[in-house]
Amino acid sequence: MGHGGKEIVERVISSPEGARKMIKGLKRVAVTGRVARECIDIAYGFFTPLEGFMDKPDVEAVCRKMRLANGTIWSMPIVFDITNEELKEKGIKEGDTILLTFRNRALAILEAEEIFSYEKMEMKKAVLGTTDSKHPGVRILNELKDTFIGGKITLVNIPKFRPPFDKFWYTPRKLQEQFRRNGWRRVVAHQTRNVPHSGHEWLMKGAWFSANGELPVEKIQTGILVNCVIGPKRIGDYIDEAILLCHQKLHEASYFRDNIHMVSIALWDMRYAGPKEAIFHAILRTNLGCTHHMFGRDHAGVGSFYDPYDAHRIFDQIPEDSLSIKPIRILEWWYCPVCGEVTYSGLCGHHKQRQEFSGTMIRSMLKDKVKPTKLIFRPEVYDKLMECAERYGFGSPFCTEKYLAERQPVFKLPAL
Amino acid sequence: MGHGGKEIVERVISSPEGARKMIKGLKRVAVTGRVARECIDIAYGFFTPLEGFMDKPDVEAVCRKMRLANGTIWSMPIVFDITNEELKEKGIKEGDTILLTFRNRALAILEAEEIFSYEKMEMKKAVLGTTDSKHPGVRILNELKDTFIGGKITLVNIPKFRPPFDKFWYTPRKLQEQFRRNGWRRVVAHQTRNVPHSGHEWLMKGAWFSANGELPVEKIQTGILVNCVIGPKRIGDYIDEAILLCHQKLHEASYFRDNIHMVSIALWDMRYAGPKEAIFHAILRTNLGCTHHMFGRDHAGVGSFYDPYDAHRIFDQIPEDSLSIKPIRILEWWYCPVCGEVTYSGLCGHHKQRQEFSGTMIRSMLKDKVKPTKLIFRPEVYDKLMECAERYGFGSPFCTEKYLAERQPVFKLPAL
Repeated sequence: MGHGGKEIVERVISSPEGARKMIKGLKRVAVTGRVARECIDIAYGFFTPLEGFMDKPDVEAVCRKMRLANGTIWSMPIVFDITNEELKEKGIKEGDTILLTFRNRALAILEAEEIFSYEKMEMKKAVLGTTDSKHPGVRILNELKDTFIGGKITLVNIPKFRPPFDKFWYTPRKLQEQFRRNGWRRVVAHQTRNVPHSGHEWLMKGAWFSANGELPVEKIQTGILVNCVIGPKRIGDYIDEAILLCHQKLHEASYFRDNIHMVSIALWDMRYAGPKEAIFHAILRTNLGCTHHMFGRDHAGVGSFYDPYDAHRIFDQIPEDSLSIKPIRILEWWYCPVCGEVTYSGLCGHHKQRQEFSGTMIRSMLKDKVKPTKLIFRPEVYDKLMECAERYGFGSPFCTEKYLAERQPVFKLPAL
Repeated sequence: MGHGGKEIVERVISSPEGARKMIKGLKRVAVTGRVARECIDIAYGFFTPLEGFMDKPDVEAVCRKMRLANGTIWSMPIVFDITNEELKEKGIKEGDTILLTFRNRALAILEAEEIFSYEKMEMKKAVLGTTDSKHPGVRILNELKDTFIGGKITLVNIPKFRPPFDKFWYTPRKLQEQFRRNGWRRVVAHQTRNVPHSGHEWLMKGAWFSANGELPVEKIQTGILVNCVIGPKRIGDYIDEAILLCHQKLHEASYFRDNIHMVSIALWDMRYAGPKEAIFHAILRTNLGCTHHMFGRDHAGVGSFYDPYDAHRIFDQIPEDSLSIKPIRILEWWYCPVCGEVTYSGLCGHHKQRQEFSGTMIRSMLKDKVKPTKLIFRPEVYDKLMECAERYGFGSPFCTEKYLAERQPVFKLPAL
């Protein structure tokens, strides 16, 4: 089952012959990476109950009430944008069926049910709470073309993920099947775009306890899903291969025991919308089959646009039954030199002596090829990171111009 | 509220004049330490809903159905035993009111409602699951005199606890009041007779997460009660003062933050009855105002009389509503040399490399005045233990003959 109590959407033509027939003679529109990723998401049900890009009533309801027009909770507008010039040039009108292409390959069919415009200013305020163009989510909205097309999406071409992404690519239905094969009755999701340090590891470990609650030991069949968001990258970000393979390394090196921890990917262009993005992540992971979702400090926030615990509080502001996934709200795990170990801010009293995990500090160590202590960064993870740097990063664990030019995107569409 | 949905029992005459009048002319019976402790427990409501020692229908129901005659769940016979010789000599019969004395001081009034006998063999089998006299619970039952008196208890003399026990002595009503003052909405109990190593510390920390479950951060007002059982001691046991003060040190030294952890005592002669004792501990801590109770590996077991997880499983065998406290069932926390920290057997995959916390090993280090690493035993706890050894233990942190002779029991009764 997926969000809103709906069966997982799947709108995919898997036979190339069938697809070739369907797309014959259709008007063609080339799409950006973001739209391509969202087409794939919609078609495989990552965005269940959405079956396509939003029409105006949905966009309006999302901005005004954080719900779809039918009342289902939803926090992010999912829109297909196009210029008026292209509409005119190609003579696109409501009722048309359009072939969307990505990098000159057929991707999906869009049934243009409604062509409409919507005030982007209102969207920014509603979703991001700001119109400040320093906010990366504002920049995404600024780049939207002026007109939107609402309508159903059908994927006509199956994306091929290049290694190592292929091993981590599960559609929602496949992932739910995998959870069943694992025997997992509860799954707690960890959202990440980071190579894990031991603060992340304990975030997951603590959340696992919280997700189990009062369950007797023999009924604990709880897994942790590390769901890595794959989207646009910037210079200096960890390379995606390292994020995946280093998380994977945590269970390969037995920091998590067998059959308790797995890694998968989701295509998504982070809006860094803080609380609204937290709701969206909860919906996304509901569709992946997760029962719980961890939310740490400043989840999906950026700069000082949100209070560090806004993304916790928003879950108190919605009716309990509006989401079937349960938020696990977490303070900070830090390294405490008095305790001599990683500990939890909600338990440890050495607040003055604490050493917060500084991503910046750890990154600068990694940049200088300094191996941090194993209490902060697992040596096997360090080794895997360096291996990934050589194998995928042209010598660097962080994105360079060369990496961005040659290694993106992580999937290709075959010729139809 | 207490166990069985009953108000906490309190049957105490606090005015010495009133008490003196009440006891005038009563037949007197001197009691053992165990009976004295249980009189205090009954009178202050530690054993709510019991108002006195059990009559035959209660003992029978406890042995046969793990319930009181009225259907309330209960696992331990609480009996007043006496020899037939003493009954005859003092002419005690049903309907009498008897003054119980302890160490020649008035303690409590017993209303002898029923004088009866009960097959001790049946009691051993039902409660302990064994009649083997190697089992310390069997030895307690073997020492019981042949006849039992059931009837209400009223305390006529207020026990005075010697320092440092006085600071940790809370009656159930006082402790529940203290929890309210602390602002604690949930309290998870830790049963102990040990000086804490970091395995115990993490047992408590992990249980705190489990007790919080999916609560949002701002609604987490969960405390940990370390409830130390004070009863008969044997040579080589940790001295009680050290158990209390070392647990207290864990929050004084900020291994637990402010207002999240407290220490108190309960008088109880451990029966080591494994699963049945676990149920009893749950009842006892319900009466102390706890909402959750942690049960680790081999809780209240001894030797190999019980499977290490019998005390977990028994909670699945009783109807959910028969206890208002929730068991938190825990596997093992161990020191993992690969992780370089204390970790949880349910999460860590380094099962081969693990180093279980061996009480015996730690005790032998302490005996030799070797300070263990702070990851295993906190230095402040070590220092406190050595201080207790000097101050209370005649130089030893473990009970010696001298300690047992001069330091027991931990309370006195004033002259009335």
